Amino acid sequence: MENKIKVSIFGATGYTGIELYRRLKVRDDIEIVDLPSKSSAGKRYSEVVSSTISISDEILIEWNPEKTVKKSDVIFTALPHGETFAIAKACKTYGKKLIDIGADYRLDKENYKKWYGLNHAEAKLIDEAVYCIPELNRDSIKAGTWLIANPGCYPTSVQLGLAPLIEAGIIETKNIIVDAKSGVSGAGRGLKLATLYSEQNENVNAYGVGIHRHKPEMEKHLQKYSDEQVKIMFTPHLMPMTRGIHSTIYTTLKKDISEDEVRQILRVKYKDEYFVKVLDKGIMPHTKWVYGSNFCHINVVLDQDTGNLVILSVIDNLVKGASGQAIQNMNILFGIDEKKGVENIPLIP
Amino acid sequence: MENKIKVSIFGATGYTGIELYRRLKVRDDIEIVDLPSKSSAGKRYSEVVSSTISISDEILIEWNPEKTVKKSDVIFTALPHGETFAIAKACKTYGKKLIDIGADYRLDKENYKKWYGLNHAEAKLIDEAVYCIPELNRDSIKAGTWLIANPGCYPTSVQLGLAPLIEAGIIETKNIIVDAKSGVSGAGRGLKLATLYSEQNENVNAYGVGIHRHKPEMEKHLQKYSDEQVKIMFTPHLMPMTRGIHSTIYTTLKKDISEDEVRQILRVKYKDEYFVKVLDKGIMPHTKWVYGSNFCHINVVLDQDTGNLVILSVIDNLVKGASGQAIQNMNILFGIDEKKGVENIPLIP
Amino acid sequence: MENKIKVSIFGATGYTGIELYRRLKVRDDIEIVDLPSKSSAGKRYSEVVSSTISISDEILIEWNPEKTVKKSDVIFTALPHGETFAIAKACKTYGKKLIDIGADYRLDKENYKKWYGLNHAEAKLIDEAVYCIPELNRDSIKAGTWLIANPGCYPTSVQLGLAPLIEAGIIETKNIIVDAKSGVSGAGRGLKLATLYSEQNENVNAYGVGIHRHKPEMEKHLQKYSDEQVKIMFTPHLMPMTRGIHSTIYTTLKKDISEDEVRQILRVKYKDEYFVKVLDKGIMPHTKWVYGSNFCHINVVLDQDTGNLVILSVIDNLVKGASGQAIQNMNILFGIDEKKGVENIPLIP
Amino acid sequence: MENKIKVSIFGATGYTGIELYRRLKVRDDIEIVDLPSKSSAGKRYSEVVSSTISISDEILIEWNPEKTVKKSDVIFTALPHGETFAIAKACKTYGKKLIDIGADYRLDKENYKKWYGLNHAEAKLIDEAVYCIPELNRDSIKAGTWLIANPGCYPTSVQLGLAPLIEAGIIETKNIIVDAKSGVSGAGRGLKLATLYSEQNENVNAYGVGIHRHKPEMEKHLQKYSDEQVKIMFTPHLMPMTRGIHSTIYTTLKKDISEDEVRQILRVKYKDEYFVKVLDKGIMPHTKWVYGSNFCHINVVLDQDTGNLVILSVIDNLVKGASGQAIQNMNILFGIDEKKGVENIPLIP
Repeated sequence: MENKIKVSIFGATGYTGIELYRRLKVRDDIEIVDLPSKSSAGKRYSEVVSSTISISDEILIEWNPEKTVKKSDVIFTALPHGETFAIAKACKTYGKKLIDIGADYRLDKENYKKWYGLNHAEAKLIDEAVYCIPELNRDSIKAGTWLIANPGCYPTSVQLGLAPLIEAGIIETKNIIVDAKSGVSGAGRGLKLATLYSEQNENVNAYGVGIHRHKPEMEKHLQKYSDEQVKIMFTPHLMPMTRGIHSTIYTTLKKDISEDEVRQILRVKYKDEYFVKVLDKGIMPHTKWVYGSNFCHINVVLDQDTGNLVILSVIDNLVKGASGQAIQNMNILFGIDEKKGVENIPLIP
Repeated sequence: MENKIKVSIFGATGYTGIELYRRLKVRDDIEIVDLPSKSSAGKRYSEVVSSTISISDEILIEWNPEKTVKKSDVIFTALPHGETFAIAKACKTYGKKLIDIGADYRLDKENYKKWYGLNHAEAKLIDEAVYCIPELNRDSIKAGTWLIANPGCYPTSVQLGLAPLIEAGIIETKNIIVDAKSGVSGAGRGLKLATLYSEQNENVNAYGVGIHRHKPEMEKHLQKYSDEQVKIMFTPHLMPMTRGIHSTIYTTLKKDISEDEVRQILRVKYKDEYFVKVLDKGIMPHTKWVYGSNFCHINVVLDQDTGNLVILSVIDNLVKGASGQAIQNMNILFGIDEKKGVENIPLIP
Repeated sequence: MENKIKVSIFGATGYTGIELYRRLKVRDDIEIVDLPSKSSAGKRYSEVVSSTISISDEILIEWNPEKTVKKSDVIFTALPHGETFAIAKACKTYGKKLIDIGADYRLDKENYKKWYGLNHAEAKLIDEAVYCIPELNRDSIKAGTWLIANPGCYPTSVQLGLAPLIEAGIIETKNIIVDAKSGVSGAGRGLKLATLYSEQNENVNAYGVGIHRHKPEMEKHLQKYSDEQVKIMFTPHLMPMTRGIHSTIYTTLKKDISEDEVRQILRVKYKDEYFVKVLDKGIMPHTKWVYGSNFCHINVVLDQDTGNLVILSVIDNLVKGASGQAIQNMNILFGIDEKKGVENIPLIP
Repeated sequence: MENKIKVSIFGATGYTGIELYRRLKVRDDIEIVDLPSKSSAGKRYSEVVSSTISISDEILIEWNPEKTVKKSDVIFTALPHGETFAIAKACKTYGKKLIDIGADYRLDKENYKKWYGLNHAEAKLIDEAVYCIPELNRDSIKAGTWLIANPGCYPTSVQLGLAPLIEAGIIETKNIIVDAKSGVSGAGRGLKLATLYSEQNENVNAYGVGIHRHKPEMEKHLQKYSDEQVKIMFTPHLMPMTRGIHSTIYTTLKKDISEDEVRQILRVKYKDEYFVKVLDKGIMPHTKWVYGSNFCHINVVLDQDTGNLVILSVIDNLVKGASGQAIQNMNILFGIDEKKGVENIPLIP
C-alpha cells in the first residue's frame, strides 16, 4: 500500500506498547518508524519482546523525541506519567499527531498536580487534548485534534457502563461505588515483589482504596454528563490472571424504572456499536469472553430487595483499556474504518 | 491415645470433606470411623481422593445414616442442601453430635423454603442448632448443644468484619454492600462447564447477584447485633484461583469517628483471638496470606472524599470458611484446645 | 467481496471449532454457512460460545451431513474420532472439499483399528487424503486433493522439529524420546473431573505414557523421511495452563557434527517460512512466545557430556496444532495467501 | 516443653526459609532464636513475610554468624551458594549443628569450583558433611554428624526414583535422561523479569539444558549405588505453577524383567516409609497430589514398543525438595520422630 501512515511508539517494550506493536505491525497501511528506548537502545526489539521474534526486524533506537517526531505522522506514547511532556511539545512544534496512552493529558493541571504529585510541564496543551472513548464521544476527534488523551483502563470500563445512565438522569451520582478487579498486567512490566508469579498466583487483594489515580479521571469525565456532582468511591483489586478488568458498579435509581428499562437505555446508546455489547437479562459478563479483544460487555441487575442498581462491565485492560482503544482513536483520527486492526474475536479458551 | 473421639464424615470426597479428612486423619485424639458414599461405596477413599494415597486406608462404605451414627461420637456432614435431614434425625435419636458444614440448619424454616426451594424435613431441629463463628459466639457451644450449624464461607468472612461494628452501633445497616471474590473450589467438585480449567482460567465473573443463598444467612445472623434492620446487597464473583475469599464491604458511618477508632473496635474485639488479625493501617489483606489456614485478616479504610467505610476481610474458603471452622467448633464442643488441628501457618508461596 | 468461499464447520462448539470460527468469521472472503450441532441444534451459537456474543448471529442447525455438504464449498470437521466418516462420504459424493481436524484420516486402516479401536467405515478414502504440515509438504496439496487430514497437535510440534534432521540423515531414529507438555485445552471441552479448575490448577501429570494415539501418527509420517525405522517413545503431560505445547525431544547424532550445524539444517529448511522460527543458540523456546498464534519456535542443544541432541519445539495447540494450520491448509487448497487469517503476532502477555 | 531446641535460620525471608519457619514455629519442642537478615535487619519478620502476620513476633536481626551460632543448638541456612562458608566455620568452632539447604556442601571441591564458579572457602568441611535423603541413607546421620548437606529439589525427586533401581543393577546408567518440570517458586523470591506473573503465567520453557547445577549433584550421589559410571542428561523446565516438581526419567533395562518386577523393587525399598509411595500400575503421579506436603509419589512404565523404562517421580519442591526434608533430617539428628512437623497430608484442592 502506498502512503502508509508513519508510526512511532515510545514505550514499545512495556505491556501496553507490545499490544500496540503486535496489532500495528501486521497492518498493510502502517509503517513502524521508530521504537525509541531509554534502557535498551541498540538491541533488537525481539530480544526484549520475544513473542515478536519471528516477525520483528526493528532495532530499538535512542530516545530523541525531536528526531523521532519529525520522521513520523503519529506518535503513540505508553509511558509512566511525566515522561510524555517533551514528546508532546515536539509533536506540537512539528505539527504531528500524538496519542498518549499514558496519563499526562487526562486531568486538568490542578488535579494532575494533586494526584500525580508533579507539576505539569506542558499544561497549556491539556486544553488541546481530546479525551476519547469512541463509543461515547468519537465526534470530538472528528471535529479535529492533534492530541488524544487515551483513557485509562479502569475508567474505560466504568464510563462505558455509567455514562449513558448518568446522561439519562436516572441514577444517583453522589456516591457511586466502583469495585474493580484487574489482571496483573495492569501493574506493568517493571520488577516488583508483588507481581512475581509466586506472590500473585492464588491471590486477590485490594490496593489504593479510595486513592487510586483513576478515580479523579472517572469523576472528571463522567461529570460531563450531569449537572449534579459525580462522586466515586473506587476500590481496585489485583486478580491472579494476566489480562482483564471486571468493574462492578453500585448505585441507586433516582426514578422508578425497571431493570429492563435501564438495560434498554444502554442498548439504545450502543445499538450501532461493534465493540460494546449489552448482554441479555441474567447473563453475567465474564472477562474471558472479551480476552485479547477490543470488546466491552455490559449488563445490569436491579436488586429489588435493597434498591441497588448493579452495573457490570468487562474489558481487556490492554486492548479496550489501552492499546486497542488507542488504535480505534487513531483510525478515527485518520479517517480509516474504526475497527481496522482491532476487529478480532476474543481468544477463547 | 485412649478414648479417641469417633468421627464419621458424610461427604468426605468433596472439597470440604477432603479438607476435613486431611486435618482429622493426622490427629492422635481422633479415630475416623465411617466415610459413607452414595456413588463410590466399596472403593478405597484414596482412589477417589488421590492426595491421601500415601496415608489413607479407609474404604468408602454404603450410605446408612443410622448405622454410621450409632458407631460414632460426632458426625460431620459436608453435603448439598437437603441431604442432612435423615442424618440429623439419627443423631438426635441416638444422642450423637452433629456438625453440619452444609446449609440445612442455618436459616429458619420459612427462609429455608424461600431460598433453597425445599420444605425442611426436620424443621423443629433448627431451633436446637447453634450457628457458631467461635470468635463471635463460642459461648453458645459451651452452653451445650448437640447440633452445630457451621457457617457458610462468604458469611464467615463478612460477619467477622461486620459484627463488631454493627454491635458497636457505628455503621448504617440498611444497605450494606458486600462485593465478594471467591476461588473456584467454592463451586464444588461436581462437573460443570463453568468450572473447567479452560473456562475459568483468566476469568472473573459475578454470579447470583442479589440472589445468592448466603445473603439471608448473613442478614439473619448479623441482625442479632442490631435493633435496626440489617439489609445486605451481596454480589459474589468467581476468581481464577482455587482457594480464598476476599470480601470488600461498603457501608457508611453513623457517627463521626476516625478510621483508627473503627480499627480499634475490631482490635479490641479480637485482641485475644489466634485466628483473627486486624492489620495495621494501610496494609491490605491478601487472600494468599491466609491460604491453607484458618486465619482471617481484616482491615478498614475510611474514604474521606465520599464518607464510605470499606471493610476488607479475607479467609480460605475451605478452612476458616468451612472445615477449619468446623474443627474449631468440634474442639470447643469436646473441650479440646480450640486451635488443635488448625493452628498451621498459611502455605506461602 | 464476491464469490466468498462457503464454509461449514462440524464441531464448532468445541475448543478447536471455536478457534476456527473466530478466525474465519472476520474474513471478508469467507461465508460461514452451517454450524451443525448434535446437542444444541436450535440454539444461537453465541449462547454456547459466549465470547462470540458480540459478533455471531448464527443458529446451530441440525446435524445433517448431506444437506450441509451440498450447500458448502469446504467442510471443516473438528470431531471425536469416528464421527467424520459420513461427512467424508458426502463430500466425496458431492465433490466438496474436506479438512478433517480430527484423527480419522491420519493413520492407515490397520493402525486406525489398533489405536482407535474402531473399524474405519470409509477406509478407501484414507488413500485420497493428504496429511499436510505446510512447511514440510505443502506441495502435496498443490498437486490436488479434496481431503486434507490435518495433523494432530503433538505431531505437528514434533515433526517440525524432527523431520529436517531425519531427512538429513544425521540422527538415530530407532529410539527417539518425546517428552511433551500440553495445556489443558488439549483435553477438550467435555466434562471430566481431571480438567476441573480445582483439580488441574497447580498440577502436572503424565498420561497415556507410550500408548497415546499421537505416537503412531508421528511414527507414520516421520517414516517418510528415512529408510531406517522410526520409533518414538512418547510421554505427554498436562500442564496448568490453557494453551500451548512444549515438545522436548531426545535423540543422538549419527554423525560428528556440531550444534551449530544441526541448527543450520533447520534454518535452511525453514528460511522462507513465516510461521517457523529457529531461535539463536541458547535462546530456549517459550510456549507463551507463540500463544494465540500460528508460529512454531524451535531450537536445539547438543549436550557434550552425554552426546544427546535435544530438540525443543513449541506451538499453540489450538492454532498451529489444530485450527490455524487447518486454515493454512485451506488457504493453500484455494490458492489464497497462506498466511491470511493466521498472520497475527502472539498475544503477549 | 522444657529444653526446647534452639534454632536459627539464615535466609528466613526466601521461599525455602518461609516454609521452614512456618513448620518450625508451631512446634512445641522448638524455639526460634535468631532470624538474621542482610537487607531487612530491624524490620519485623511479618513485615517481610506477610503470611506470618498473625503469629510471628520476631524481629529480623543483623547478620552476625558468630553471635547467632553461639546462641543456637542448630542452624538452618537457606542461602545462595557461597554464603554459608562463614556460618559453617562458626558452627564448627562452637560445636553447633548445621543443616545447609543451600548447595555449598553437596559437591566435592573440584566440581563445586567447576559448576558454581567459586573457590570453596571451607572445602575441608565438605568431607564432614552428610548428604542425606532419609529414605535412602538416614543411617549416615544416625552414625553422627554436625553438618548436613540437604539435597537439592530436583536431585531429591530423581534419586528417590532411581537409586533403588541403580542399586539393584537393573538399569543402564550411562545415559539416563531426566526431563524435569518445576513450579516457579524454585526460581526464588528475587526480582527477575522471567518470574513476573505476566511473563510466566501460561508459559512452559526449558532452561539450563545439560548445564544445570543439579546434574553433577545427581551424578555424584547416584554413583554410590553403581560401579558403572552414572551419566545424566538433565533438562529442567519452568511450569506456570507455584510449587511442585515432576521428574520424568528415561532409561533402559539391563535385564529382562517386567514392569511389575521393577515396581516391586521400589516397593520393597520403600515399604516402611511414610513419605514415599509407589503407586499402583497405571496410576500416574500428579504434583498436586503431594502439594504442600513432604510426600514423594513414584511410578514406572515399561514401554514394550521401544524398551524404555520411564520413571515418574513427584514432590513439592519447597517441602520434600527443601525445608520438609531439612526438618526430617533435623529430627533424625536430634533423635525425634522423623515425621514430626512434616506429617501433614497434601493440601487438596
